[in-house]
Amino acid sequence: MNEPLHNGGRSDEHLRREGRGDEHLHGVILAGGLGTRFWPLSNRRRPKQLLPIVSKRTMIQETAERLAPLIPPSRIWVVTGADQADEVARQLPALDRSQLLIEPVGRNTAPAIGLAAMQVAASDPQAVMAVLPADHAIGDPTAFRTALAAAAEAAAAEPVLVTLGIAPTRAETGYGYIESGQVAGTFAGRKFHRVAAFHEKPDRSTAERYIESGRYAWNAGIFVWRASVILDQIGAHLPDLARILATLDPAGDKKAEGMTAAGPALAAAYARITPISIDYGVLERSSHVWVLAVDCGWNDIGSWAALYDVRAPDSAGNVLTGDVVAVGSERALVHTEGPLVALVGVEDVVVIATSGAVLVCAREHAQEVRKVVEELERRGRTDLL
Amino acid sequence: MNEPLHNGGRSDEHLRREGRGDEHLHGVILAGGLGTRFWPLSNRRRPKQLLPIVSKRTMIQETAERLAPLIPPSRIWVVTGADQADEVARQLPALDRSQLLIEPVGRNTAPAIGLAAMQVAASDPQAVMAVLPADHAIGDPTAFRTALAAAAEAAAAEPVLVTLGIAPTRAETGYGYIESGQVAGTFAGRKFHRVAAFHEKPDRSTAERYIESGRYAWNAGIFVWRASVILDQIGAHLPDLARILATLDPAGDKKAEGMTAAGPALAAAYARITPISIDYGVLERSSHVWVLAVDCGWNDIGSWAALYDVRAPDSAGNVLTGDVVAVGSERALVHTEGPLVALVGVEDVVVIATSGAVLVCAREHAQEVRKVVEELERRGRTDLL
Repeated sequence: MNEPLHNGGRSDEHLRREGRGDEHLHGVILAGGLGTRFWPLSNRRRPKQLLPIVSKRTMIQETAERLAPLIPPSRIWVVTGADQADEVARQLPALDRSQLLIEPVGRNTAPAIGLAAMQVAASDPQAVMAVLPADHAIGDPTAFRTALAAAAEAAAAEPVLVTLGIAPTRAETGYGYIESGQVAGTFAGRKFHRVAAFHEKPDRSTAERYIESGRYAWNAGIFVWRASVILDQIGAHLPDLARILATLDPAGDKKAEGMTAAGPALAAAYARITPISIDYGVLERSSHVWVLAVDCGWNDIGSWAALYDVRAPDSAGNVLTGDVVAVGSERALVHTEGPLVALVGVEDVVVIATSGAVLVCAREHAQEVRKVVEELERRGRTDLL
Repeated sequence: MNEPLHNGGRSDEHLRREGRGDEHLHGVILAGGLGTRFWPLSNRRRPKQLLPIVSKRTMIQETAERLAPLIPPSRIWVVTGADQADEVARQLPALDRSQLLIEPVGRNTAPAIGLAAMQVAASDPQAVMAVLPADHAIGDPTAFRTALAAAAEAAAAEPVLVTLGIAPTRAETGYGYIESGQVAGTFAGRKFHRVAAFHEKPDRSTAERYIESGRYAWNAGIFVWRASVILDQIGAHLPDLARILATLDPAGDKKAEGMTAAGPALAAAYARITPISIDYGVLERSSHVWVLAVDCGWNDIGSWAALYDVRAPDSAGNVLTGDVVAVGSERALVHTEGPLVALVGVEDVVVIATSGAVLVCAREHAQEVRKVVEELERRGRTDLL
């Protein structure tokens, strides 16, 4: 998966020409991730989505800019935590502070999406929401936006929950899969299927079977639906959450001081919410879920190793950012924020250097970086977390 | 070669009892090394011999202390460069400033030894000099001192150049070898041989043949001779150097301001000296060279990999100094002067971290660290050199 990260030439003109950039389409960016897998660059105040690890711009900036031809800043909302809100505001200056929905505490995606749906619906009863993680990379943004526009058209027309299913490129065991059923309809020339089932992360042989069948796609956590429809479905499948959300008055809280952590109603509500994902809480239980297959060079950048996969390597296969000298070394990912990093005779390593900490990791063990974070927590090294 | 670095129990009492700690025995420590192989810890002002890389004490401190039961500080001389003299003085406070012989510029070992011989001879016409590199490790200091004392006895009795030949423990291709000839004599119960030949670094098969024959030892650059004898031999084999040295008046220069770089006679003399090693310039040309075989856990710590060999590893085979977290990693050498270093899933690596630079090196490529230094020189990165 070495797709270029930026779309060089292809234009989004057809989106505008065909009027798909609908004025009721809102972007909801979920930016609540803790990002322990990107230690030592990421930390509590600077999780992965707030870091410039794929390009010179941060991942949340890339996410917002990727939507720009389709959704202007005035219709983009970010759900985030109090620790990160100031930095989000700094990185996305085109957003009004009222467009930041600040959760007092993380409760997984269903409450975050419910909160956003209430806010969006209050501002626009006809709103269609595109829900997007803040920390994914998209190699072909035009293909992505074209799919998003088609999904928005479907969601505007039908009371359904549309998921984007990423066309799989390998028998990956680290993702959930969406199984397509019958064709449900055609919008903007794209076929939508009913979702037959959601599947948890499979074992290797199951994943291989999925790929062969051609009916399975990766679940990227990218969804499109009317705000009113998802609120209705939350009411049907997560009635407790719906009741708690109903105690909030988005307009009122907003008028006072924005939906901030300080909002007493929000804090009280979140204290009573049980964490649950939108996938498990709603999508897997609903019979109104569609999937649109999309091939857009998606990568969730789930680890330093995944970052290596999306960056263009030099002739030795190295991806080097910052002050680096590489001698006889191949297929290394180096990212330094300060100290010079010198490599000698090493292969397939990840080296991340900050002024306070240095990570040296075998690329194939990049998922285990969280063990370092756990060990630092055990040692009480809050200075490095 | 995992010998302990410190001799725990064996006493040097027999040395004193047998009167071998001769009052005419002087120690001459050569501390002119630039230490590029220990970048980024070593640099121009702090070469390897001035760093605490084997123990908590610096290598030159270890070298001086190792001699203590045999040679008191008052008879220890250090040949070093102007850049390092202040730090040498700081690290060896028992030495008088006049015992530091400061070369205006490095000219390899023959001039350094000639200069020291003149100085030592001026202070004690009967002096026997033990010449010792400042940056070697000795696993069994008692065995080392016993050999040194025997060599001193031989050198006091005979007008010969005694080399210590290190009993080889492997077919090393990185060292020069000393080939033993006929037995030359016995002193302090030890057999001394004539040197049949010096051999440059051999190829693998030659090194294996050397080891099998049992007649070859590593040349460690450790020599014992009377100051008057080495001066005589320099006169015979390096007459140009001898003439230049003869223009110096050690007593006079010393009286003024010590033999410092500022000494105008010394600076003028060194400007005219051609660099040459004592091995090539004198030992290989002389017919008065003896060798005493010694097995003392010698290691020249020629690279970070060699340092790993002399340090006691933990249960995972790691040697970790400073603030380190190791997850699923084996046989690593980590030395950090500041930043926390975290290892994940790596094996046989060397990681050295300072506030300004981080080295990540495959242990088997540790000799290539000099290429980093060369590259930094090319880039003009004097901040890191």
